[in-house]
Amino acid sequence: MFVYADNAATTAVSKNVLDAMVPIYTEVYGNPSSLYSVGQKAKEILEESRERIAKILGAKPREIYFTSGGSEADNQAIVSAARFGEKKGKKHIISTKFEHHAVLHTLQALEKEGFEVTLLDVHENGVVTPEQVADAIREDTALVTIMYANNEIGTVQPIAEIGAICKEKGVLFHTDAVQAVSHIHINVVEQNIDMLSISAHKFHGPKGVGVLYARGGVALTNIINGGAQERGKRAGTENLAGIVGMTVALEDAVEHMDENNAKFEKLQDRLIEGLSKIPYSELNGDRHQRVKSNVNFCFEGIEGESLLLLLDDKGIAVSSGSACTSGSLDPSHVLLAIGRPHEVAHGSLRISLGEDADEEQVDYIIKSVTEVVEYLRSFSPFWGDLTTGKRPHVFLEHKAV
Amino acid sequence: MFVYADNAATTAVSKNVLDAMVPIYTEVYGNPSSLYSVGQKAKEILEESRERIAKILGAKPREIYFTSGGSEADNQAIVSAARFGEKKGKKHIISTKFEHHAVLHTLQALEKEGFEVTLLDVHENGVVTPEQVADAIREDTALVTIMYANNEIGTVQPIAEIGAICKEKGVLFHTDAVQAVSHIHINVVEQNIDMLSISAHKFHGPKGVGVLYARGGVALTNIINGGAQERGKRAGTENLAGIVGMTVALEDAVEHMDENNAKFEKLQDRLIEGLSKIPYSELNGDRHQRVKSNVNFCFEGIEGESLLLLLDDKGIAVSSGSACTSGSLDPSHVLLAIGRPHEVAHGSLRISLGEDADEEQVDYIIKSVTEVVEYLRSFSPFWGDLTTGKRPHVFLEHKAV
Repeated sequence: MFVYADNAATTAVSKNVLDAMVPIYTEVYGNPSSLYSVGQKAKEILEESRERIAKILGAKPREIYFTSGGSEADNQAIVSAARFGEKKGKKHIISTKFEHHAVLHTLQALEKEGFEVTLLDVHENGVVTPEQVADAIREDTALVTIMYANNEIGTVQPIAEIGAICKEKGVLFHTDAVQAVSHIHINVVEQNIDMLSISAHKFHGPKGVGVLYARGGVALTNIINGGAQERGKRAGTENLAGIVGMTVALEDAVEHMDENNAKFEKLQDRLIEGLSKIPYSELNGDRHQRVKSNVNFCFEGIEGESLLLLLDDKGIAVSSGSACTSGSLDPSHVLLAIGRPHEVAHGSLRISLGEDADEEQVDYIIKSVTEVVEYLRSFSPFWGDLTTGKRPHVFLEHKAV
Repeated sequence: MFVYADNAATTAVSKNVLDAMVPIYTEVYGNPSSLYSVGQKAKEILEESRERIAKILGAKPREIYFTSGGSEADNQAIVSAARFGEKKGKKHIISTKFEHHAVLHTLQALEKEGFEVTLLDVHENGVVTPEQVADAIREDTALVTIMYANNEIGTVQPIAEIGAICKEKGVLFHTDAVQAVSHIHINVVEQNIDMLSISAHKFHGPKGVGVLYARGGVALTNIINGGAQERGKRAGTENLAGIVGMTVALEDAVEHMDENNAKFEKLQDRLIEGLSKIPYSELNGDRHQRVKSNVNFCFEGIEGESLLLLLDDKGIAVSSGSACTSGSLDPSHVLLAIGRPHEVAHGSLRISLGEDADEEQVDYIIKSVTEVVEYLRSFSPFWGDLTTGKRPHVFLEHKAV
């Protein structure tokens, strides 16, 4: 059995999406900036895609900027707010400790330039509160940037409430919605979002294309200078096939969101219940305030990488932490942010189900994880100490099953 | 008859390329940063692509960085050299007046930061000389960035000689090779190139993907921060399908380069000969030191946009100036740089042949351009003045035919 349950890392391009992309590659290949017919046809499709994406987000077409992906969108949103802020003497930015590195590393670069960054603590359940944001806002705050749903533990933040506070205080608000847009209905106006980032490959669109939504009136700074594409704010010949693929993928995702979520919710319950039976295990992130396809567990005494490699042998593709940091030996900054100790943050597992998931897949995951955890613990000296009572600390509770 | 002769603007994705991309979209969809099999398979293909592209350029695989295209590569190369230079007090950059806007606008952004930019004049034939570069280099020069082949007039610069001068003087050398890599054999070591930019969609690869080559030892600065992809220098999940498509496209282009150039040379001769017969017309750029598929003409008394729209009616896709600036009412900065007066720089036509070009296509282009130029001049008051002798200036010579 093969189970791909790492849809938070990336997804396969769907048949619908590929069918929409192929004719762009072969027939509508004109440069959208060209004035002749084949170029103008490309331009029409480009603008139609912009309208369709804007409609889904509750935005205006001219507020949609196509980028090479979520990381670029995050970078441009943050750099833009920083450049705009510093002109008015505002060099303070608020974010959280468990953002994606596209946000955290951009903030670090700004810190080197003299910006001051407040990273909010995250509650044990993986959520920051609007009150925390309100308390942190200062006179010189240029931007609040808080992710919509966390990429590792899937917890969903109270974005509309945070947005309302930012609006009231006159502070720009950006949200990295890469992990949210295909799981949660987003309306940028109702939710008071000034800027928002999307990446197509998280919802069966192609890799290498994304969206930066920026409310009209928000001054964008280029991070790629050059031609006049994207209203002069993002240079480079438009990746039309990618943009069309993303549009179809997003429409499909939003159209089927409610039915998918209903299905995911049941599977999530089953998965959490099953994995909770493993001794010294615990769900990471709030039980309910999370993306329905996401389950993230800690298993004490286990090294996450070994766990996922053995699961791979059983045909299960899941991850430890996020893909973007998988080469790293550091424990997950997300798990540390929610208060997991280093020893436990190394032993986590993220399962992000796909639309083809069913009870059979879930049961196979539960059975396999249970076996592998038991197997790994059987020869772990660390775990051995615990069973013989010699281990100095027990971090996770052992629930009777 | 339909003739797509704007291959310098963009190209259709070839069948070979598409065939290579489709299985990546549908089968090798794993995130190359993931540790399980489907991710590792993606990683293998990613690194194999890097090796194949490095081999073509005479570079090492670890010197190849995948970007979202030529503009991003140009931006990152220039910003990197600037950041590296300013640390050592070097804030002077040398370029030319006829670079692509991805270079010129990046340089303008650096000027606002306090960098000093010397834009070399371009000789009437569309070429800068190594001597000009040598004369302009100062103690505080951080970078020389000169395009390999011009995107409008196709003239080829003496890159190896310029590179040798930069090497001798210890100055970083970048070349935008977007218009060159599929037409001219490039070896970064033999040609003393420290950094080089490529865009896939100029040679039948997909849009939205490119390469920045940076010699080992050149310190890159991120313009997209985040995950650890591309040795930490370019964040964002890798666009593997695009990268694979680009690799196949570049291999195909280089494999068939010599035979294509031999064919293009004959067609170029025929096209130049035919268009020269139009009164008050002139070839822009050197007759020989140019990309073999490029022909660029000025027609006095003609507005370029009208010319190309009427040619579009005849099924011919060509451009006036470059696609990236087509919305602009300004005359081409390239034609101004080679000394064309404003009045003439508005009336240019770029024909960039595709691999399917033949004598029949070329003859159809000659016949159509001749007819359209004559038609437009027949009701141009500007041109009318000339024929009645009332026009103040004649810019182009009227060659007897």
